[in-house]
Amino acid sequence: MTDDAATPGKSGAKNNPGNFFEDFRIGQVLAHATPRTVSDGDRALYGALYPSRFALWSSDEFARASGLPRSPLEDLAAFHIAFGKTVPDVSLNAVANLGYAECRFLAPVYPGDTISTASEVIGLKENSNGTTGVVWVRSTAVNQRGAPVLTWARWVMVRKRDAGAPAPQSVVPDLATAVAAADLSIPAGLDFSAYDFAAAGEPHRWGDYTVGERIDHVDGVTIEEAEHMIATRLWQNTAKVHFNVQARDGGRRLIYGGHVISLARALSFNGLANAQCVAAINAGAHAAPCFAGDTIYAWSEVLDKAETAAPGIGALRLRLVAVKDDPTPGPLRGEDGKYAPGVLLDLDLWALTPL
Amino acid sequence: MTDDAATPGKSGAKNNPGNFFEDFRIGQVLAHATPRTVSDGDRALYGALYPSRFALWSSDEFARASGLPRSPLEDLAAFHIAFGKTVPDVSLNAVANLGYAECRFLAPVYPGDTISTASEVIGLKENSNGTTGVVWVRSTAVNQRGAPVLTWARWVMVRKRDAGAPAPQSVVPDLATAVAAADLSIPAGLDFSAYDFAAAGEPHRWGDYTVGERIDHVDGVTIEEAEHMIATRLWQNTAKVHFNVQARDGGRRLIYGGHVISLARALSFNGLANAQCVAAINAGAHAAPCFAGDTIYAWSEVLDKAETAAPGIGALRLRLVAVKDDPTPGPLRGEDGKYAPGVLLDLDLWALTPL
Amino acid sequence: MTDDAATPGKSGAKNNPGNFFEDFRIGQVLAHATPRTVSDGDRALYGALYPSRFALWSSDEFARASGLPRSPLEDLAAFHIAFGKTVPDVSLNAVANLGYAECRFLAPVYPGDTISTASEVIGLKENSNGTTGVVWVRSTAVNQRGAPVLTWARWVMVRKRDAGAPAPQSVVPDLATAVAAADLSIPAGLDFSAYDFAAAGEPHRWGDYTVGERIDHVDGVTIEEAEHMIATRLWQNTAKVHFNVQARDGGRRLIYGGHVISLARALSFNGLANAQCVAAINAGAHAAPCFAGDTIYAWSEVLDKAETAAPGIGALRLRLVAVKDDPTPGPLRGEDGKYAPGVLLDLDLWALTPL
Repeated sequence: MTDDAATPGKSGAKNNPGNFFEDFRIGQVLAHATPRTVSDGDRALYGALYPSRFALWSSDEFARASGLPRSPLEDLAAFHIAFGKTVPDVSLNAVANLGYAECRFLAPVYPGDTISTASEVIGLKENSNGTTGVVWVRSTAVNQRGAPVLTWARWVMVRKRDAGAPAPQSVVPDLATAVAAADLSIPAGLDFSAYDFAAAGEPHRWGDYTVGERIDHVDGVTIEEAEHMIATRLWQNTAKVHFNVQARDGGRRLIYGGHVISLARALSFNGLANAQCVAAINAGAHAAPCFAGDTIYAWSEVLDKAETAAPGIGALRLRLVAVKDDPTPGPLRGEDGKYAPGVLLDLDLWALTPL
Repeated sequence: MTDDAATPGKSGAKNNPGNFFEDFRIGQVLAHATPRTVSDGDRALYGALYPSRFALWSSDEFARASGLPRSPLEDLAAFHIAFGKTVPDVSLNAVANLGYAECRFLAPVYPGDTISTASEVIGLKENSNGTTGVVWVRSTAVNQRGAPVLTWARWVMVRKRDAGAPAPQSVVPDLATAVAAADLSIPAGLDFSAYDFAAAGEPHRWGDYTVGERIDHVDGVTIEEAEHMIATRLWQNTAKVHFNVQARDGGRRLIYGGHVISLARALSFNGLANAQCVAAINAGAHAAPCFAGDTIYAWSEVLDKAETAAPGIGALRLRLVAVKDDPTPGPLRGEDGKYAPGVLLDLDLWALTPL
Repeated sequence: MTDDAATPGKSGAKNNPGNFFEDFRIGQVLAHATPRTVSDGDRALYGALYPSRFALWSSDEFARASGLPRSPLEDLAAFHIAFGKTVPDVSLNAVANLGYAECRFLAPVYPGDTISTASEVIGLKENSNGTTGVVWVRSTAVNQRGAPVLTWARWVMVRKRDAGAPAPQSVVPDLATAVAAADLSIPAGLDFSAYDFAAAGEPHRWGDYTVGERIDHVDGVTIEEAEHMIATRLWQNTAKVHFNVQARDGGRRLIYGGHVISLARALSFNGLANAQCVAAINAGAHAAPCFAGDTIYAWSEVLDKAETAAPGIGALRLRLVAVKDDPTPGPLRGEDGKYAPGVLLDLDLWALTPL
């Protein structure tokens, strides 16, 4: 199909060509398609695809004892669903996903809730090569009552359709390096003052973790093609490279970065079983591509600690690192300052933990 | 196990040998086993196995805005479940599945509904080789209230147990080449007059499609063994060839034709996002076998258009074609009139679309 | 990580090293972590992973006609979930799973129920090598009302952390070779007096089976990596060897024995479609390891029969045998008394069957 045929409104082409760099405007709001109702089926699949054992997400009884009406959809599952909706409009013609910032989890998502996502373009900068540019968007997911459940900023490098299209005025948004602890949103009613450490699986409280401490999560999982595709489809993320061996040179599917995030988070149970909720993602880098056959291990480092106003709840700022094929936690970066070989993911997040 | 031991009532054999050609009689009604209650778990799995994004099936809110009580089970999932029940009685000893006709979707299936299927033998014709014959059945699936949800005709070539068994009188039923538009069943209450095109993902209305138009669905999916087996088991279709590498010469599992149907239908979202419901399947041919490792692409052709009596709803008659390994839509047939190499599926269906 | 660092309370190590042989004491009660709420999502996944067609577990209507409020979670799914909870405390450092006994299914588990498991140490015996010992535990799973749903004894060979630790006094519990028929627990209200044999798929009643009869279940399934991992994660069983190709010499994942149990049970539908409920597991041996690529077949032998006090319900004691790669049922053991090559599983169970 030629570019002309792929342009909506031309030649009768009906399929979606996605947006190119010159299609974005500062202040433009993209209402993404395909609202998605979540169910206990999604919860079961999340648990079947990731070795997750966090009690708040496994047990309605544990959730009720923690002040919630029942166990919600896993926070990262909500993130993947909300994020997936942005792909057809924001990153279908992306060359690279460059980063995340200011991601806050604003309210739990429960089975029966319907998630929709919209994005506002908050930054644009054409690259000097004239064929690509960087687009910054702030995306917000809401439930069926219009209440925001998740917000985040993201920037991607996108191809131009036409290298001759004029460059827009550069606007580079000022994004925080981390969500301030005071801005963390605690789910309404959440209360860890009667927390059951035996049911949760580990005795370690917020006070037992020290800044700079590193935790080896020990366990490893070797990735299979069917598993990452089942997960990625569950999020309705249909980027071709994740599903089609013909879509990339080399004939291998590229694994959705969110799959590595969820795997690493689930592995972090072993040592961080009480880091029950992800309250924010401060930053995230996918340091290297991941393929089927890679064996994923994870380690965490405590970056910061903060108290919260909620009963019995503290916040840990954690660096969660996924590496491949080497079970022995090594350095994050080499002497050259670049990520060490084997590092796949460097995620900076806030987690809620019992005091 | 010898044939004698495999015959029910003989030698105490307890396992099911299936029916052979001479076991069928015109007018015979087969009440198929294993009623099946569907759930949100089935819906989640369908979305995890097929890259489906049709809004009516993704969102309870979209379904309610379209006049339904909530989002039903995907129409093809209902078809696969209803169809799967017929396998142990109709096609356990089949040599080939020859065709479908007159398939109509009569009512949505919701989580909590229980589906049962029965079939009536409507045609029999022994082949001249004396070892096989063609059996035509009309199958009807009902819900727990006895209301029909799906009906279709199907014919298969079945082995004889005993080549010496006398041939029955030949009865070949007269089946329509297509369901008449006036006979399409529209789900009670379905109303597209306030249809949200932005939520659905594409702006194209019924009036935007023209007879003869061809739509390239662009995306491709490479098939994995685990995925087609998980799907096929979900439909309780236990034909050996789909699961057991020892069941066929060549040591490869044959992929259930319904898996290709659902993959092609999900891929057709890209260009036919508003073809929300399958109202009928007029005909279907599995032109070539499909195996793991094949990359499936799809294209559609608009064959016909019809108005309906329902508010805001038109019908598109579509040819949905699945091909393997070639992303460029080519001809359906070669100069010899046979399906072109790489064509896997040629499905003729009616879909409901907003005016 | 050194042993010191891995010891809880030492060096700040936060991850779970599991218990070693010298950590167990007779009478000790282990309250296992991660209560688990089950849902229709789990039911859908069970049906997608195992070719199960038993009507009581497929249809709410069939279950209601049998006196239950709806179709429960499959009995073996409940077993796998309850069992999975014991792994981090009992068998993380196991060398071998040696056996099961006295497993009784005490009450159905329904979607919405939350399962927790606790174990009591009932036996200890150090091996003469001084580096390992056998631990016997009796485990009980309860629902959110504290009602027991499942109980079983199990023994495993566990490594010592420190070969110099003193041997405990040997206590070897006296376990029954089979659950007495009078001790079988029938689900409250279960009534097979109006049993629908057509819906169930086979005509064979309790009275049609004779002690000593052998049933070939005919069908076979070739195992895929993704499928056994999805299943094993669903049970939150995180033993490394099932997921990580680097965790074993030879680079192959070892398949969870419970996966073979559920596969064999599902295959047994063909010939035992009316053996609806597993009421007890008398004994179980995993005769050989199972790997992806193995094709699993099953056969059963009727070991005993018993009446029950429940309406229309009899009990069959069955030996359920899973073998690999050979579709022709052969002898269970060779002339040397050892399991024949290819035998994977020898399971002795009681099943409830209509009279």
